[in-house]
Order: sequence, then C-alpha cells, then structure tokens
Amino acid sequence: MTKFDEATQAIRVDENTYDVCLDPGYAIGGPLNGGYLMAVILRAAVDASPFEHPVSQTAQFLKAPVPGPAQVRIEPLKAGRTAAFARATLVQDGVAKIEGLITTATLADVEPVYSGAPAHAMPPIEDCAKLPDPKPESGMTLNAQMDLLFDPPTIGWLKGEPTGRPESRAYFRMAEPQDPDPYVLALAVDALPPVVFSAGGRGWAPTVDLTWHLRALPAPGWLTLLGSGRLVADGWFDEEVEVRDSTGRLVAQSRQLARVGRG
Amino acid sequence: MTKFDEATQAIRVDENTYDVCLDPGYAIGGPLNGGYLMAVILRAAVDASPFEHPVSQTAQFLKAPVPGPAQVRIEPLKAGRTAAFARATLVQDGVAKIEGLITTATLADVEPVYSGAPAHAMPPIEDCAKLPDPKPESGMTLNAQMDLLFDPPTIGWLKGEPTGRPESRAYFRMAEPQDPDPYVLALAVDALPPVVFSAGGRGWAPTVDLTWHLRALPAPGWLTLLGSGRLVADGWFDEEVEVRDSTGRLVAQSRQLARVGRG
Repeated sequence: MTKFDEATQAIRVDENTYDVCLDPGYAIGGPLNGGYLMAVILRAAVDASPFEHPVSQTAQFLKAPVPGPAQVRIEPLKAGRTAAFARATLVQDGVAKIEGLITTATLADVEPVYSGAPAHAMPPIEDCAKLPDPKPESGMTLNAQMDLLFDPPTIGWLKGEPTGRPESRAYFRMAEPQDPDPYVLALAVDALPPVVFSAGGRGWAPTVDLTWHLRALPAPGWLTLLGSGRLVADGWFDEEVEVRDSTGRLVAQSRQLARVGRG
Repeated sequence: MTKFDEATQAIRVDENTYDVCLDPGYAIGGPLNGGYLMAVILRAAVDASPFEHPVSQTAQFLKAPVPGPAQVRIEPLKAGRTAAFARATLVQDGVAKIEGLITTATLADVEPVYSGAPAHAMPPIEDCAKLPDPKPESGMTLNAQMDLLFDPPTIGWLKGEPTGRPESRAYFRMAEPQDPDPYVLALAVDALPPVVFSAGGRGWAPTVDLTWHLRALPAPGWLTLLGSGRLVADGWFDEEVEVRDSTGRLVAQSRQLARVGRG
C-alpha cells in the first residue's frame, strides 16, 4: 500500500458510514488540499457502489476539515444498469465539512469514437520547471507528495511576471512510485497553483465547488495538467483542468468555482 | 408573469418544502427537458437562500419526472458571508427524481478583471438557420418555447452531413418576450440538440449529471450558446456549453456527462 493509498483509506463501520483519518501531509498552509479530500470521499463512495469507477464527483466545500479522524457518510440514491448515484458527506466532530454527489459506473478500455486535441501544447518535460521548495514553516506539506514540472510562463507570477491570463500547466506524478488511478486523478485536478495567480491574483483562493469527470482509466507514467479560466470578476473565478495521461488520452476534466484570494 | 415564470413557479409549503407543477410544454419527446427541471429547482433554492443568485447548480438525473405536481425539498447546509450551500431534491410521488447541490451568492455588476474570448466565433444571426418544426406527435413541445437560430454546419447532421466533431451552436431567446435571467440560463445550458449529433450520434441522449455556473447577470436580448465536447467513448460523452449575452459577456458555463443514444 502506498502512502497515498494509506492516507485516503476508508474503513467501513456500518452500511453507510466509513471511518477515515485525514493526513496532515496534504496541507496547503493551514487547510488540507481539496483534491486529497475528494479522493478520501471517493474511496468510501466506490466501496459502497456496485460499479468500479467514479465517473463524476461534485464537492461543495462548506468548512475546512482539519487533520485527524473523520467520517464519510454515503447515501445511495439509485443504482441503474449503467450508473449508480449517491450522496457523500465528509463529517468531522459531527459537522458536515464537504457535501458531495458521486456517480459511479464501470468504464471499459475502448477506442474513442471522437477525441479532441489537448487544450494547449506542452513544452517537452525537460524544458519545464519546478517551484522552489516551500519553507518548512509555511505548512505546504502537499508539495512533498507530488512532482510538478511547470510550463515556465505559467509560473512567471513567482518572479512578478504573470502572463495576464488565468492559466497553470504542469506535468504531474506522485513523488512516491505510484501509477495514476481515479484517486490520484482526484488529487491531480486540484493540484495546480490557482490559475488566477497568472492573472495577477494572490493568496489563498478557496474552492467553493468543484466537479470532475473521470473519462478513461489512465496509463502509467506522467500526467499532463492543463489548467485555464475564462472569467475573473467580482471576486470569483473559474478553473478548468484537463488531465491527459502519458499516451495523450483525456482521462479527467474538472471545473471549479473559487474565490479570488485577498492577499 | 411570463409563461416560463409560471411554469417554473415554486410555492413554499413549509420551511423546507416547495410545491411545483411540472409543465408538459417543456418535453423532448417523452421526458421533460433537464434545463427546465433545473430552473424549477432553482426557484425554490433561491427563495430559501439569504442570497439573490444561484452561482452554481449540480443536478444528478436519477429518474425522469412526468408532467404534473411535484415537490422540491431544500436542505440548507451552510450560509457564510459570501455564499450559501444547499441540497435540493425534486421529489414526485414520494420518489427522488433529481438530486442536486446549489450554491447561492449575490453577484455585482462590475467590470471583469479578466475575460477570455468566446470559444467559437458565431456567424451573423441572419446567416443562421432554424430546425424544422417537429411533428405534433413527436412530443417535442419544448421547441415552441424558444427561438434557436443555429450555426448551419452544427445542424448538418439533419441532412446526413455531421461535421464529425461534437458541437452545437445557436442564438437563443425565449419565444415569448422575456429578458434572460438566471432561470432562463438554466434552460439555455441544456437547450441545444446533443453535441454528439454532430459526431454521428443519434437518439435520446440522457444527461447523467450537469453542473453549471452563473458568472454574471445577462443583458436583455439574444443569448449565444456555444456547445462542444472533447471525448465520445464507451457510450459516454461530455457536453460543455458557454453562454454569452447580447453584449458578448460570459454569463454561464456548463458541463454535463451524458450517455450516447442507442439510435
């Protein structure tokens, strides 16, 4: 079992309840990463489902959970021939922290009828750049869990040179050897620095809600994360992430609505 | 009160329950249009919220509701300073038909910090084309509620000339004089023929889940609907719709995961 598998483990305690333990190793400053929390919720939801794969997950981030014990409550809504629907709530100290809807199905590994081109062409991996290591006191423990190699202009904001467009693009893999799977993809869709940083935004940009779709099972190797946004207005922005696997296949798509940071 | 306002009316019966009456005028063959049903749910959710606008709505389509009386049950989850979260369930004859999550906030009419270009350039409205009127026995009553003028290649499938790409684009307005508002936008994000028709798909393409975000309040006049998809595989496709108002402003964004029709 990898560190990530362990950190996202969900242990069934009764028909609708799973015990989880939120790992402090997935923090961005104070709060835990939203993608990590979605992966924890998915473990419970897939275990409770008659199908194998989470094809859609929506999460409303109500209140930041803290590291430590928590529960995932699953309420099955309907199971049909091709898909099953469920509510999923992450509860801590009796308080709902994340409310969600999950659709499960079983995806087959088939040739697509239609597959569009990637939203953006990435430079070769050897031309991409890492972010500087965070200071230990920053509480950015998430950075140690994954390798991110950025398309250089999209981290120009670090040197005071934002591109002016909401965008963030990187190659991604887990730091520990681990092939990507649907749980790693849940982490990946929320792993980039907020796209709004490239449009001049700064500071903690809280996700309000995020929906992502699993479109195919990823091949082993690096993932490519192509993040963009279309509108930054009135303190709100959208962040869309397209995830391609090492063969170029579209494996996940997400969109989140988030608040622009204040600082 | 317009016909659409009346058809989407939600009457509070107790703190968490609204009575609605699903109108047979919004059918696509047998089933009622998903966008119409989302608008009905939104009426209740916004009434129950301390904020004015639905900024995000996710709906899981569990089972097709039929025309006639139904209830919307709202469960408030959290109300903060800038946003409130709620569950919303459309119930008919005691059975949950649509499960949803709604986030409300109050949007201000301000100049965007960043606004991207439209996903596609539309031809002038006078070069766009209507679909032929549906046969009365087809049960396509929705068509009479709205005017849609299509970018001609995206309805080439009608003449056996699909473009080969999942896409659907049109100018949209209500048939009855009515300025667009968030409820009209809920209808608009699910008003196009399935994008998969342009990629060779056929038949009823049921939505599994749909999430849309209200990004700004629309100006009066025609809306532009730009629909596209990135992957059609294993019987599943994604449909994304970007909605611009008559001033060109991005007012709504949606993505749905749907099943390819069987013919």
